[in-house]
Amino acid sequence: MFLPSKILEKKLLRMLAEDIGQGDVTTALVIPPNSTTEVEVIAKESGVIAGMEEAKILLESLGLEVENLVSDGEEVKAKKALMKISGDTRTILSVERTLLNIISRMSGIATITRKLIEKIRKAELKTKVACTRKVAPGLLYLDKKAVLTGGGDTHRLHLDDMILIKDNHIMVVGSVEKAVKTVRKNVSFSKKIEVEVTEVEDVLNAVNAGADIIMLDNFSAEQIEKAVKILKNEHLYGKVLLEASGGITAENILAYASTGVDVVSLSEITASAKALDISLEITKTKASKKTGN
Amino acid sequence: MFLPSKILEKKLLRMLAEDIGQGDVTTALVIPPNSTTEVEVIAKESGVIAGMEEAKILLESLGLEVENLVSDGEEVKAKKALMKISGDTRTILSVERTLLNIISRMSGIATITRKLIEKIRKAELKTKVACTRKVAPGLLYLDKKAVLTGGGDTHRLHLDDMILIKDNHIMVVGSVEKAVKTVRKNVSFSKKIEVEVTEVEDVLNAVNAGADIIMLDNFSAEQIEKAVKILKNEHLYGKVLLEASGGITAENILAYASTGVDVVSLSEITASAKALDISLEITKTKASKKTGN
Amino acid sequence: MFLPSKILEKKLLRMLAEDIGQGDVTTALVIPPNSTTEVEVIAKESGVIAGMEEAKILLESLGLEVENLVSDGEEVKAKKALMKISGDTRTILSVERTLLNIISRMSGIATITRKLIEKIRKAELKTKVACTRKVAPGLLYLDKKAVLTGGGDTHRLHLDDMILIKDNHIMVVGSVEKAVKTVRKNVSFSKKIEVEVTEVEDVLNAVNAGADIIMLDNFSAEQIEKAVKILKNEHLYGKVLLEASGGITAENILAYASTGVDVVSLSEITASAKALDISLEITKTKASKKTGN
Amino acid sequence: MFLPSKILEKKLLRMLAEDIGQGDVTTALVIPPNSTTEVEVIAKESGVIAGMEEAKILLESLGLEVENLVSDGEEVKAKKALMKISGDTRTILSVERTLLNIISRMSGIATITRKLIEKIRKAELKTKVACTRKVAPGLLYLDKKAVLTGGGDTHRLHLDDMILIKDNHIMVVGSVEKAVKTVRKNVSFSKKIEVEVTEVEDVLNAVNAGADIIMLDNFSAEQIEKAVKILKNEHLYGKVLLEASGGITAENILAYASTGVDVVSLSEITASAKALDISLEITKTKASKKTGN
Amino acid sequence: MFLPSKILEKKLLRMLAEDIGQGDVTTALVIPPNSTTEVEVIAKESGVIAGMEEAKILLESLGLEVENLVSDGEEVKAKKALMKISGDTRTILSVERTLLNIISRMSGIATITRKLIEKIRKAELKTKVACTRKVAPGLLYLDKKAVLTGGGDTHRLHLDDMILIKDNHIMVVGSVEKAVKTVRKNVSFSKKIEVEVTEVEDVLNAVNAGADIIMLDNFSAEQIEKAVKILKNEHLYGKVLLEASGGITAENILAYASTGVDVVSLSEITASAKALDISLEITKTKASKKTGN
Amino acid sequence: MFLPSKILEKKLLRMLAEDIGQGDVTTALVIPPNSTTEVEVIAKESGVIAGMEEAKILLESLGLEVENLVSDGEEVKAKKALMKISGDTRTILSVERTLLNIISRMSGIATITRKLIEKIRKAELKTKVACTRKVAPGLLYLDKKAVLTGGGDTHRLHLDDMILIKDNHIMVVGSVEKAVKTVRKNVSFSKKIEVEVTEVEDVLNAVNAGADIIMLDNFSAEQIEKAVKILKNEHLYGKVLLEASGGITAENILAYASTGVDVVSLSEITASAKALDISLEITKTKASKKTGN
Repeated sequence: MFLPSKILEKKLLRMLAEDIGQGDVTTALVIPPNSTTEVEVIAKESGVIAGMEEAKILLESLGLEVENLVSDGEEVKAKKALMKISGDTRTILSVERTLLNIISRMSGIATITRKLIEKIRKAELKTKVACTRKVAPGLLYLDKKAVLTGGGDTHRLHLDDMILIKDNHIMVVGSVEKAVKTVRKNVSFSKKIEVEVTEVEDVLNAVNAGADIIMLDNFSAEQIEKAVKILKNEHLYGKVLLEASGGITAENILAYASTGVDVVSLSEITASAKALDISLEITKTKASKKTGN
Repeated sequence: MFLPSKILEKKLLRMLAEDIGQGDVTTALVIPPNSTTEVEVIAKESGVIAGMEEAKILLESLGLEVENLVSDGEEVKAKKALMKISGDTRTILSVERTLLNIISRMSGIATITRKLIEKIRKAELKTKVACTRKVAPGLLYLDKKAVLTGGGDTHRLHLDDMILIKDNHIMVVGSVEKAVKTVRKNVSFSKKIEVEVTEVEDVLNAVNAGADIIMLDNFSAEQIEKAVKILKNEHLYGKVLLEASGGITAENILAYASTGVDVVSLSEITASAKALDISLEITKTKASKKTGN
Repeated sequence: MFLPSKILEKKLLRMLAEDIGQGDVTTALVIPPNSTTEVEVIAKESGVIAGMEEAKILLESLGLEVENLVSDGEEVKAKKALMKISGDTRTILSVERTLLNIISRMSGIATITRKLIEKIRKAELKTKVACTRKVAPGLLYLDKKAVLTGGGDTHRLHLDDMILIKDNHIMVVGSVEKAVKTVRKNVSFSKKIEVEVTEVEDVLNAVNAGADIIMLDNFSAEQIEKAVKILKNEHLYGKVLLEASGGITAENILAYASTGVDVVSLSEITASAKALDISLEITKTKASKKTGN
Repeated sequence: MFLPSKILEKKLLRMLAEDIGQGDVTTALVIPPNSTTEVEVIAKESGVIAGMEEAKILLESLGLEVENLVSDGEEVKAKKALMKISGDTRTILSVERTLLNIISRMSGIATITRKLIEKIRKAELKTKVACTRKVAPGLLYLDKKAVLTGGGDTHRLHLDDMILIKDNHIMVVGSVEKAVKTVRKNVSFSKKIEVEVTEVEDVLNAVNAGADIIMLDNFSAEQIEKAVKILKNEHLYGKVLLEASGGITAENILAYASTGVDVVSLSEITASAKALDISLEITKTKASKKTGN
Repeated sequence: MFLPSKILEKKLLRMLAEDIGQGDVTTALVIPPNSTTEVEVIAKESGVIAGMEEAKILLESLGLEVENLVSDGEEVKAKKALMKISGDTRTILSVERTLLNIISRMSGIATITRKLIEKIRKAELKTKVACTRKVAPGLLYLDKKAVLTGGGDTHRLHLDDMILIKDNHIMVVGSVEKAVKTVRKNVSFSKKIEVEVTEVEDVLNAVNAGADIIMLDNFSAEQIEKAVKILKNEHLYGKVLLEASGGITAENILAYASTGVDVVSLSEITASAKALDISLEITKTKASKKTGN
Repeated sequence: MFLPSKILEKKLLRMLAEDIGQGDVTTALVIPPNSTTEVEVIAKESGVIAGMEEAKILLESLGLEVENLVSDGEEVKAKKALMKISGDTRTILSVERTLLNIISRMSGIATITRKLIEKIRKAELKTKVACTRKVAPGLLYLDKKAVLTGGGDTHRLHLDDMILIKDNHIMVVGSVEKAVKTVRKNVSFSKKIEVEVTEVEDVLNAVNAGADIIMLDNFSAEQIEKAVKILKNEHLYGKVLLEASGGITAENILAYASTGVDVVSLSEITASAKALDISLEITKTKASKKTGN
């Protein structure tokens, strides 16, 4: 999930442009044109930091100097300085809120993702924790990147990178089996096929029809264990990947992770993430002596 | 905060485009070209609905027929059908996630906003509840619109619509008084001037320098009461608006609202909103008999 | 009204792109690839210069070196050199017309704005001179910025930064009073409310309903004086701002400014501005000795 | 200069979007959602109308019904109704200013263009009146289209559609002759070659080097007559086109047109055009009885 | 690879906009405003048609009526009418070239793709024919869609939908084995891993390190057979997919397809496709009797 | 056809963005963040190189260092190194395919163009070789620029730069004569008028009606010679330009060029160009020792 800076820059500048509107009227009136400032971005609470790369790209595109003091994915304590920025005061104060919104949201997502993974790792399980496409609308890139920074699995990046046959597809087609077979016949060799099943009975059908991954949707942990047992009986366990999804929360994630599935996925890490509290503090400021312009 | 549909449509289609990428490969393989479907959007939990207008604009721009069953701002119980959609099955399934992400996020924000306001109204207080610019990056319009739908105050829509002198502006300039005076001298007659103060002592300075609104930043409820008393003593209470901001949460909001301030503002309703659980269910589907194309 | 350079750059490059089309065919044929040139931008007539900041951002984004010899808002005589530019000859000649169009239009607006203000200041009046939203379509930012540079008031920057209830709003709602009251009930605390009145009788209604600013639309100077007298009688003069608008020209502006209004606004400074005559002259040119590439 | 509506629509919607910002806050508060209105666009002064086509495309893209009562290029008296619009009140009031700005500017340009042409035609001259590329920045399409509507010649539409060797090109290359020859050797067969000359002496050089059009830049009418005589002596008059440019105004245009040139071009019709006074008046309004949504 | 029309429309209109520039000057001068026309798009040579869906979306977005007479993927003989279009003459003539360029290029690609596949199917082989990312720059969507329409495999749609470790990645990392293992450890469960090998020796290493697909790059048919034999000896044949790539042409494709690989991929079907000859012919035209506007 | 780099950059980055999607997942997993690399772009076959300027602009916009080893238009042998690039490894590998696609396509077009021109020059003819607007959709700029680099004539750059009355225009209007006369009456003095004729008989009509250029469409070489003779008889040969178009290929181009026409135009050099084989090879790579960020 590497984007050349220039491509990322465009996405980030669009966010800034919305926030600026016709211009920052306060800064224009309060801050003289040639003032320069040094500031620090500070974590006000502990967490896993994400968005440092994005922040740097945004700030540098505005002509500011940036030194990142932590790397994406690093866990920090409250009061930790994350980044030093220096340059034109007006520019810094105009970008402040957009900058903090990016780091706060992404770090909030990375933090909850990491916490869930650590819970699972402490139980000595290897189950992956994945997000879904339930993100803030338009923030697919930032939200998925933050999950990745937290150690999670991004799942599909959008609708073109894996086949995922969902309940509504199946309802149109008629059955899990028919849907998977139709896809298997025409799909590009480059793509995996995942299918959502809502009944234990459909698990075998899905595997036999040629699915690479089975999403066990809204199953209880017990139902999943039953599905695992069926696959083991048929010597199919381990031949396909199993993903548990739906109804999984921070509270019950361990129960799901213990069932033998390869992946647990949950939407709350992106759709309901709590932003990490981050602020920007001035450490030095001075009016420029430059004249003319 | 009225946007002609065509302008909104563009913002919404950009969200969809990101999610689609080079195309929905699953739907292309599973669903035949001329199938049509009727679906309902269903609230899976109770809350205040927002985003119905945006959803309708997005769907109609794609050639789908839409009937909204509830209006923005309406409070619904779980299982309530919000919207009927009919038209091309492939289009419906490709837009499903973007559609739900919009309604879920906006309804989540409207729901928590309404809840806080009702808490305050039950205590028979008229204090306004406002959001801040701490939104998901790039979602200023959607997030502010959702707050409005929930009954809250949008505060600044971006950096050009009111003067808000913040701590960092003051640090560059030297003092609250100096900052406000500088602004007052040059500001457009069309704009209000708000200034953030962090010390009780600065409240009077701010008012005397010509501020229209005082933001009491990170004050305890007790400090605010002290500030109110000072203003009353000087017969200035009621001449300026008072906004309490910083550290306000669902738990302590009533204490703040009771101090005599006009507005309490808090970022968690936008920056850390829990998405409302919404889903899309097929009610009827059929293959088209149209041939040729 | 401060925009970070990168955001402004995008607006300015779009202007250039329209003018270039598929490429400058003349320059491509006449000027060899590695030629470099030094040029000066010269005022051909006296006036108040605006657009220097925008020009610099545009030129630097193209890789040219720029030295501004005057600042925005400075008054210059004919023949004054405003700016030195050096760099790739092809680039300079391709951007020449877009560059001059920006400075010419903005300086034309700044010049007429300043002239009107000076007329008023000479009469020892403090009345503000504001523009309206009657600008060249799509040039809201440039035109308003030029007014500001000339010393004028920008009035609303677009439709989201102040409430301005116009004649057509009132016609739909029924009365000035009803319109203002409706707004007052629901408006964000961050916004001022202005209302347009066309009858002297409505001035008091507007104030009593809660307007912050009264726009006296198409009033004669005598009618305005009558309105001022009424407000004074009610001890309301000074409690609201008064804006005279409609029918105001360079000729009669002093009569209006003398009535006691706070602001006179007129559209001709933006909608019918005469461009200042500006040209670009080569001071040094040489073919590059660079070979290969 | 025909643009399919959909392509024009995009340019026009961008103008509207700038003016709307995050939304029309006044209309949102004052006008209820389902109100519909009928309005007329009225000329407040006499002139040649332009921009009707653009206006219609913009309005129809917003879902409004439009009936144009005059055609582009028609001359109207004051008080003439130009257009009827009906539909959603909020949309009409939000687009009002952008709509009027387009028609006002374009009609202003068409009016002055037509006036100059009529002056020349009354003198029974066939000289064409052309604009230059000195337009409001970014408004090349609208300004040129308005000149065309007024009966003028658009000259170059941008930098790719004709060769025009200007003074600065010549200064880099060394001489008119050298510049024209260089171009003639490599130019596409599809393009005409025009060259700017500042000395009578260069006219013959330019023709002999292969120019199709000679721009006589900043010549007095007498100098032009001298140039014409030289060409006639050499039996070259009529073999190339002659354009007089620079210093031409409404006052002296007839003197220039009488010299025997084919074209007179002047920038003031686009760069310093006075907007025609146009307004929008409500003729009928009603709240919708539609409920729900 | 299904894109909702509105998303596709935007891509297609951008192509049209580039071709139109500031407007179709010929059509504007020759064709009167209210003329309507019926035309047919005709195949001038036989082939497999692609781009009908894209063409329809583009034309309908311009307000034209369209009837497709053949479906994407249909094979036609010369002189076959593909599509009827009716509507505004100016619009039809302005879009003609862009329309034909889309259908010509896409049909050219579909035709050569189909031809290669039929060659292979006639030999009773099931080998898939895939394209690569060697497309006309910026035409990834259209070119891949055309391959699909011809019956080919799209391979990666862009850089985010499968892991493909190429020679240059391996050169940086050091070895096929190390590269595959690094990826396997961190890759999303949703993605397949393909690796390019240039030596027969590396095939086993790649499989053992965990690759899902092996690209045999620039192997001769004999080398591929050797690699297949090695895999069979190790009972690994059939456990991974094999793709032959590099140096494959219409001439030798059968030799490669016969080696036992699953996929043959070649760039010439997209990078060097011959456009199918398609034209647009008027069948009926009439001036509109509509007056005024 | 000179575009300032910044304008070109935008077009080129859009191509890259399509290819990257949500990010290069392979490079992100395989290549560590601070690795730097030196690479060379190598011609794998001989040809005329084009796209070096575009490539350099794209790469430099991504922060890479570039040294072009050949200039646009230079003819090279196989194995020739065209360009050295150094910088961030991830960025280089992510842009590799887009970069090569640009150079390959443009060089393929330049190579075939040059070959045809040399064929004609060897026969000591001066006939120009022009392309048409039959390009890859959306690639008008790149394809025309490549033709120019190969020594060809770009013909119209889009629909606004010359009048070209085609068969379909004539069918609507009624006759060649009527179409040309209509245009001649209203056309801008800045534009040439070309008209397509399909019958020898129409050639004189076209010239007499005022056309500057006659396109002899789908004429055999013999028919063209007949047309030339007619013009000579009327002493009109040499007064207008003659373009042969339609049915011209690499095989018969000499026959057409020998007929006395000024220009031969053919679509296959752009619409069916074979991409030149170009590759990118790493010459040096190292992990950065930079830590932190």
